[in-house]
Amino acid sequence: MASALRTASRAGLSLPRSSARPCSRTAPIALRRHYASAAPATGERSYFPHEPTGPVIKTSIPGPESVKAIERLSKVFDTRSLNMMTNYQRSYGNYIADLDGNVLLDVYAQIASIPVGYNNPSLLLAATSPEMASALINRPALGNFPQHDWADILETGILKVAPNGLNQVFTGQSGSDANELAYKAAFMWKRQQERGGAHVEFTDAEISSSMTNQKPGSPELSILSFKSAFHGRLFGSLSTTRSKPIHKLDIPAFDWPQAPFPACSYPLDQYAAENAAEEQRCLDETERLIKEWHNPPAAIVIEPIQSEGGDNHASPNFFRGLRELTKKHNVLFIVDEVQTGVGATGKFWAHEHWGLTTPPDIVTFSKKAQTAGYYYGNNDLRPNRPYRQFNTWMGDPARAILFRAIIQEVERLNLVENTAITGRYLYNGLERLAQQYPGEIKNLRGKGQGTFIAWDSPRRDEVLKKAKGVGVNIGGSGEAAVRLRPMLIFRKHHADILLDNLEKIFKS
Amino acid sequence: MASALRTASRAGLSLPRSSARPCSRTAPIALRRHYASAAPATGERSYFPHEPTGPVIKTSIPGPESVKAIERLSKVFDTRSLNMMTNYQRSYGNYIADLDGNVLLDVYAQIASIPVGYNNPSLLLAATSPEMASALINRPALGNFPQHDWADILETGILKVAPNGLNQVFTGQSGSDANELAYKAAFMWKRQQERGGAHVEFTDAEISSSMTNQKPGSPELSILSFKSAFHGRLFGSLSTTRSKPIHKLDIPAFDWPQAPFPACSYPLDQYAAENAAEEQRCLDETERLIKEWHNPPAAIVIEPIQSEGGDNHASPNFFRGLRELTKKHNVLFIVDEVQTGVGATGKFWAHEHWGLTTPPDIVTFSKKAQTAGYYYGNNDLRPNRPYRQFNTWMGDPARAILFRAIIQEVERLNLVENTAITGRYLYNGLERLAQQYPGEIKNLRGKGQGTFIAWDSPRRDEVLKKAKGVGVNIGGSGEAAVRLRPMLIFRKHHADILLDNLEKIFKS
Repeated sequence: MASALRTASRAGLSLPRSSARPCSRTAPIALRRHYASAAPATGERSYFPHEPTGPVIKTSIPGPESVKAIERLSKVFDTRSLNMMTNYQRSYGNYIADLDGNVLLDVYAQIASIPVGYNNPSLLLAATSPEMASALINRPALGNFPQHDWADILETGILKVAPNGLNQVFTGQSGSDANELAYKAAFMWKRQQERGGAHVEFTDAEISSSMTNQKPGSPELSILSFKSAFHGRLFGSLSTTRSKPIHKLDIPAFDWPQAPFPACSYPLDQYAAENAAEEQRCLDETERLIKEWHNPPAAIVIEPIQSEGGDNHASPNFFRGLRELTKKHNVLFIVDEVQTGVGATGKFWAHEHWGLTTPPDIVTFSKKAQTAGYYYGNNDLRPNRPYRQFNTWMGDPARAILFRAIIQEVERLNLVENTAITGRYLYNGLERLAQQYPGEIKNLRGKGQGTFIAWDSPRRDEVLKKAKGVGVNIGGSGEAAVRLRPMLIFRKHHADILLDNLEKIFKS
Repeated sequence: MASALRTASRAGLSLPRSSARPCSRTAPIALRRHYASAAPATGERSYFPHEPTGPVIKTSIPGPESVKAIERLSKVFDTRSLNMMTNYQRSYGNYIADLDGNVLLDVYAQIASIPVGYNNPSLLLAATSPEMASALINRPALGNFPQHDWADILETGILKVAPNGLNQVFTGQSGSDANELAYKAAFMWKRQQERGGAHVEFTDAEISSSMTNQKPGSPELSILSFKSAFHGRLFGSLSTTRSKPIHKLDIPAFDWPQAPFPACSYPLDQYAAENAAEEQRCLDETERLIKEWHNPPAAIVIEPIQSEGGDNHASPNFFRGLRELTKKHNVLFIVDEVQTGVGATGKFWAHEHWGLTTPPDIVTFSKKAQTAGYYYGNNDLRPNRPYRQFNTWMGDPARAILFRAIIQEVERLNLVENTAITGRYLYNGLERLAQQYPGEIKNLRGKGQGTFIAWDSPRRDEVLKKAKGVGVNIGGSGEAAVRLRPMLIFRKHHADILLDNLEKIFKS
């Protein structure tokens, strides 16, 4: 601990001095100069003592220092999608800092991938541990030369939070990678079923045709996904992504089917009958595609909330219906929790909201977990031979160690419960704003889904731009949605700041 | 530095006390107990003081402690491809340790991915730096929120070793990922050419058909690869991989062409005429496929040495011929340096051996670099719109910082030159062994290619197994090749140990 503290102090970072709660006086020195600690109006304390009490805007964004840095970077790196040139050493808790002294409340959080705050002291402790150093400099090829404590790292980390019924994991490096690994598992499982079991040998025709990318060795099977879905941008995952043309144009894709995702009316509970009919229509069409698509699906893949393609929600009943369909037709049910997982919906995994009687076959994860992979429970999903599901690194112990520290932080501070509570508070506040500014907030959604909240805005891009001007970093989803993706350490007083600033924008 | 030393000492690891060369007395305590420092017979010193003077074999492998650990791990992780349960804290320099006190000379190096030795002190310094801690706990979405020093990290690291003529990079996370990103760049470039330039808008038909995975939006273009090639195992990269059926069976693949890779006779220079004819045959067939394949290639992709599919070599003339073909037919030339790159062939990039007059269009990298991505130089390879080449993390600053430290270590110790010199010494020793044991070493290859050496063995798997028994960790390639992939810190006295132990096996 002592050496980690010293390392930390060199970085201008802070560490907790007791495991009970972060102590005060640990804000980065750079920030401490700027902000006095103050109890927020809600009477509730930030998890980060000396977190800024609110945004600070000193220049337009990007300011002069950022403009210079962007010019330099653009010579060697594509900066056309750049949103904010960031100073992470000055970012802290829920606040993100730029190079010009601007500090913004961040409810986008690196596209929903920062779980427990910038410069989280507990994560710093893990990042400066001897285990981390070894994992970084001695990166193993996990399938061949796993480290002696890999079982322990899995059991006390990734597997500790495994979804009910799924007790095994195959680790990867990104959400896209996790989904493709899951698809590969599904194809091998399906062909094994068709072949008659794990013991049945490959035929000569399969072996030779696989090498020329032809059937039967390279089968004409598919993964069924849903309209507006996002599952990643590698070639297999992109074939299941249906969010925006800009993601897909000019890239060859597999001839795989897409089912309609329910176009529900919000709030879901006020339109229960209409939504149920719409969901049934989508279930019927999904079943038809499973039965009739010329490249039969080995699996269907779905996000609990379509998190890139517009923040589209459906009812638990719809997802239970999908689970039934997959069982009926013997295809796998893959739930993509890359963005919804790790607490943001007020449950650790969003599919816990559904009340399934049998678990999904596969759940994929990444983003807030910092690592990635897929959970599964059925041993038939382990390919019948070694080296069928394999690559050099097969994940990354360094990131698995970090996820373990995140899990510990989530448990220590009850952050899933916090997200559920803060989410209700935030949703109620947004409902009030929606009544006051019905032209600004349409189709508010995410009730009961933690802080995973969104609405449609007739001037979405303008709202996002103006939000930066008042000190809030917000992202969009799909064509018209404003999506909120605060961290798990987002509290009621942060919600108040967000609501106040939204109102400023709506008034302008 | 002081705090890094303290962190290091807790891990039982070592750090250099001066930047000139690692000091003595810095071996891990665990190892120091076992090995006295001794000057090797070649008179040359190890880069790691107190590195073991040779392998130590205490039990059969796996020994009893490893068996217990493997049993535990196999409950939650697929261990059927497990090669050795490893204790990385006790691994050092060129030596890999297991859980039973066995310490092996490692010429496989995590499938060719460890560049400068286990527990390298300079890497430990980078891994325990404040920059690393921040990069780990504040992982940016680089396309949207790059860190303020990202240009600096690129320029002093990844781009410092950019191949001649290629001054830009798109970063990724693995070799497979790097190749797929390169393929996407190639497809976007090709369609832009067909469309008439960067300024030409997408048509409505392209936009709508892309969302249903149909042409023209999802074009029927291809990437041409070569028989026995290995380019990764995601869906796009796997479609270009042609190494072994077990990699491809049951996984849907794109209908893309494969050209023959020259079946050369070794040593290459002794069969120059026959090899030239074979290479011309392959060039002709490549040209035919570029012109005639029903899904036209946007690019060809090739490894400088086929590093998984049997360690197959071809002459510089062949690769120059490919470069000419790609220019003639306006397709991109992608060189996959995932395994050959970063010094192992006695040049920093293996394609430097070819004497090209114009550089490749794209060079991909990963493995020893610890990070991944593709280099390019032509601005037309930057897609015409933002968000076309994009994903959440777009690489990883933590690993880029590590690659920078690797580059510094390679330069400080002249490791590329070392690899060229040691490679010649090793190759000569293997030539002698091949004369003595012609039934054991066939088709020795890799002359002049650093330590990137291989041969065919009539009893390959038995040799690899016996090698463990005498204290050497070696890997295979393709069906019959023994592949050597030592680290860049492999010296003549390590070569002597390898040669002695090979002879023991050949005699047995």
